Amino acid sequence: MWWDGKILRTFRCRLQQKPGALGRLLSAIGELGGLIGEIRTIQMGGEAVVRDITVYADDSGHLGRLIEVVRASPEVALLEVRDEVLEMHQGGKIAIRSRYDISNLATLRRVYTPGVAEVCLKIKDDPSLARRFTSIRHLVAIVTDGTAVLGLGDIGPQAAMPVMEGKASLLETLTGLSGMPILLDTKDPDEIVETVVHMAPTFAAIQLEDISAPRCFAIEERIQTRLDIPVMHDDQHGTAVVVTATLLNAAKATGTDLGRSKIGVVGLGAAGLALARMLMSRFGRPVLGADLVPEAVARLVEAGGAASDLREIMAGCDVVIATTGAPGLIQEGLVREGQIILALSNPNPEIEPERALAAGAAFAADGKSVNNVLGFPGIFRGAVDANVPRITREMLFAAAEAIAAFARPGEIVPNPLDKALHRAVAQVVARTALAQGLNRDDLTGYFD
Amino acid sequence: MWWDGKILRTFRCRLQQKPGALGRLLSAIGELGGLIGEIRTIQMGGEAVVRDITVYADDSGHLGRLIEVVRASPEVALLEVRDEVLEMHQGGKIAIRSRYDISNLATLRRVYTPGVAEVCLKIKDDPSLARRFTSIRHLVAIVTDGTAVLGLGDIGPQAAMPVMEGKASLLETLTGLSGMPILLDTKDPDEIVETVVHMAPTFAAIQLEDISAPRCFAIEERIQTRLDIPVMHDDQHGTAVVVTATLLNAAKATGTDLGRSKIGVVGLGAAGLALARMLMSRFGRPVLGADLVPEAVARLVEAGGAASDLREIMAGCDVVIATTGAPGLIQEGLVREGQIILALSNPNPEIEPERALAAGAAFAADGKSVNNVLGFPGIFRGAVDANVPRITREMLFAAAEAIAAFARPGEIVPNPLDKALHRAVAQVVARTALAQGLNRDDLTGYFD
Repeated sequence: MWWDGKILRTFRCRLQQKPGALGRLLSAIGELGGLIGEIRTIQMGGEAVVRDITVYADDSGHLGRLIEVVRASPEVALLEVRDEVLEMHQGGKIAIRSRYDISNLATLRRVYTPGVAEVCLKIKDDPSLARRFTSIRHLVAIVTDGTAVLGLGDIGPQAAMPVMEGKASLLETLTGLSGMPILLDTKDPDEIVETVVHMAPTFAAIQLEDISAPRCFAIEERIQTRLDIPVMHDDQHGTAVVVTATLLNAAKATGTDLGRSKIGVVGLGAAGLALARMLMSRFGRPVLGADLVPEAVARLVEAGGAASDLREIMAGCDVVIATTGAPGLIQEGLVREGQIILALSNPNPEIEPERALAAGAAFAADGKSVNNVLGFPGIFRGAVDANVPRITREMLFAAAEAIAAFARPGEIVPNPLDKALHRAVAQVVARTALAQGLNRDDLTGYFD
Repeated sequence: MWWDGKILRTFRCRLQQKPGALGRLLSAIGELGGLIGEIRTIQMGGEAVVRDITVYADDSGHLGRLIEVVRASPEVALLEVRDEVLEMHQGGKIAIRSRYDISNLATLRRVYTPGVAEVCLKIKDDPSLARRFTSIRHLVAIVTDGTAVLGLGDIGPQAAMPVMEGKASLLETLTGLSGMPILLDTKDPDEIVETVVHMAPTFAAIQLEDISAPRCFAIEERIQTRLDIPVMHDDQHGTAVVVTATLLNAAKATGTDLGRSKIGVVGLGAAGLALARMLMSRFGRPVLGADLVPEAVARLVEAGGAASDLREIMAGCDVVIATTGAPGLIQEGLVREGQIILALSNPNPEIEPERALAAGAAFAADGKSVNNVLGFPGIFRGAVDANVPRITREMLFAAAEAIAAFARPGEIVPNPLDKALHRAVAQVVARTALAQGLNRDDLTGYFD
C-alpha cells in the first residue's frame, strides 16, 4: 500500500564551488514542489563539484519544470538526467542460480544423472526428505493476478512483475528465502485456487500479492484449506501486522491502553478487514467499522465487529485507523481530543498528520512509514523454518510486537532493511508455532 | 533417458606407497563388478598416499561387498565411505537471487517502491517492455508431474525435484537461463494444461519434463496451442535431437546416406515417436515403427510412418533405433550386415554394442552417451533469444546438426559441458527462426 506516486530521476549537476550554491539549488527545486532524495558527490574540483541529486517529481510535466529551473540557475550546469530506476530494471532483478558450477563430469554425475537417481528414490521412500535434499524448503511462491498493484489498480500480471521481483529480491536479501514470482493469466477465483493448489508441491509457502478485494478473502481461505503449507495474502495480513506494530508504538508513545480503547477502522478492504480481525482477536472486544460497501461491513460484523459510520467512529473511538483510499476524507472538525489517528491511504492520507495533531489528536501518522517490507520477510522465514501448516493470528500478532519492539526510541517503526529485525520476527513466529504445537520441524537450537 | 541405475560413493583410501598398489586395489574392485569414476589425490606422504576413489555399485548389497574387498586388502586402509551425492543435495541445488543487494533506502526506492511503480506503468502501456524490464525473458518453467522420471517411473513430483533442479542448474551453468522447477500435484491432462497455461505469463518458455506417454503428446500440443511462447517436452524432442545428432555422426562414420536409408524405430514411446517424426520430416520418407502397444503404432501411422515389427525392421532396415526399455530384446541373429544400430535403453541396451558389431553391424552404440544435456539448454536459449512463438522441427533438426558437428574426430557426441556447444546450438536455432520468419525480436548482432 506504500507508494507515493512520484517519479524518480537522478540529476547530475556541476555546481560552482561557492558557499550556499547547493542550498540555493535545492531550494529552487523545493519551491516548485520537487522532493530531494540522496545526494552523492561524484567529483570535487577546485572550482566545481559534480553531484548526483535524486529528485522526486509528481509527473512528467512537473519533472520538466524542475529540469527547467535547474537549467536556469547560473551557478549550476545540468550535465545529465538519468532514469536509474529503469536502468536497474534492465534484464530483471532476479535470477535462478545453480549452487554448483557444473564444469566437469564428476560434478555432473553428482548433481545430475546418475547420482541424482538415488536421491529421488530416497525421497520417494520418505517424502519428508524433500525438505532436506531439495530446494523446496526455501522456495516461496509470490503469486499475483495483477488486479490490485500498489495504488495502480488492475494493471495485469506482467505489469505487476517489477513489484513481484522486488518482493523476491527483498525476501532473498533480508532472509535468504527464494521468492518466485508466479503471474496468473486469470482473475477467476476458481482458476486461481486450482492453479496455486496444483503447483504447490514446489513450494514451502505461498505469498499472495496484490489480488483485489473482495476476491482475495475467499481465494486465500480456499487455498489454505486445500494445502498444508502456509498461505498468506500479504495485502491483508502483512499490512495488518505492520499497522498493528505502528499502533502499538503509538499507544506506547501516548500511554494508551489498547485493551481498554475503543478502536474504529474506516475502510474495510483487504488491509482494513484483516487489521480489524487481528485487533479483535487480540483485545477481545469488537472493533467498529465503516465502509461505503455494505458487503464489506457485513464481513466485519460476521467476524464479530460492529457496523458504524465515519462520524460515529470519529466521535466515539480512542483509536481511528483509515484505509479508504479517499484523501482528505477526515475533516479537522471530526477529530476528538486525545485520539490516535492513523490515516494510511497513499499517496495522500485521509487527514494530514499535522492537521490531525493541530485539531487535538494525541498521535497521528500517515501511510508513508507503513511499509510491508517490515513484515512479510520475517513472517515467511519463521513459518517456513518451523514448517507450520498455516500462519495463525497469534504468530502474526507476535510478529507485530517484535516489529514494534525493534523501533528505536523516537521512531515509530524500525528500519525495514535491518536484517536483525527480520531474524527477530522469524524467531518470534517460530516460537509462537512451538507454543501452539504447530511446528513440524524440530526447533532445537533455532533460538540460540 | 540416461540413467545407469548405479549408486555412487567416494572411498577415501590410504594406500601404501609401492608400485602397483593402486592397480591391485582397482582390479579387486573391478573383479567384483564395481566401476571406477574419478580418482583424486588428497595427500601424498613418504610411505602412503591418500586418495578419493569414486566407485559405482549396482545396489547397496553390491556396495557392501565392494567395501569388504577394500577392507580386506593388506595394502589399503579404507578411511571413509562418503555419500557426496547426498551431501551436495543438502538444502537443494538452486536458489533465487536478487541481482541487487538492497542494503540502503536509496536502492530500496529504486528496485521497490516508489520507483518500481513507473516501470509497472510503462509495461502496462506497452506490454512488450516486460521483456526488457523484468526477468520474464530469462525464466523457463521446468514442469513435471513426476510420472516418468529417469528410468524410475512414476515416483511423484517431489521425488522428481532433484532431477528438475539438476536441469535448472544445467540451464543456468550452460546458458545463463533461469530454470524454475514447477512440480504438479495432478496427473490429469486437463488440469496440467490449465495450470501451465494460467501461470505462463511468468515465463519465456515452458520445458515439460518426465511426463509419461501417451499423456505427454496431447498435453504438450494442447499447451502449445494455447500459448505463444515455446513449449517443448524434452523427453520427446530434446531426446530426438540428441539421438539424431548421434545418428548423423554414425552415418558420417560409416558413409551412410540417411536420405536413402530405410530407418526403423523399435519402441514408440515419447522419444521413439518424436524421433520418427523428426526423421520423416527431414528425409521425406516413412520410418518403419514397432511397438507392443497398438495405439503407439497407430500414432506413427497417423504421422506418416509404416507399421512394422521387430523382425521385419531388423531384416529390412539400414538403420535401427531401439527405445523400448527391454534389455536384450535384439538377438544377435537378427542383426543384418552393415546395419547402424542404436540400442538406447538404459541401464541395459536392447543389444550390447560389442555384440551387435560382432554380429556384423557397421556401427553400434548404446544410450550411455545419449545425454539430453546436449540439447535442451541451447535449444531453449536460442528460442528465447529469438522470441519465437514455438519451436519448429526445422529448429530442432538444425540443433541436431550443430550438436553432431561439434563432436571431435573419433567422438560420436561432443562434451555436454562445453559452453561453446550450447552457444552454437542457440545460434543455429535463432538463425533457423530468422529464416522461417518466426523471430519476434530483432537478431541484429546476435550471430557476431
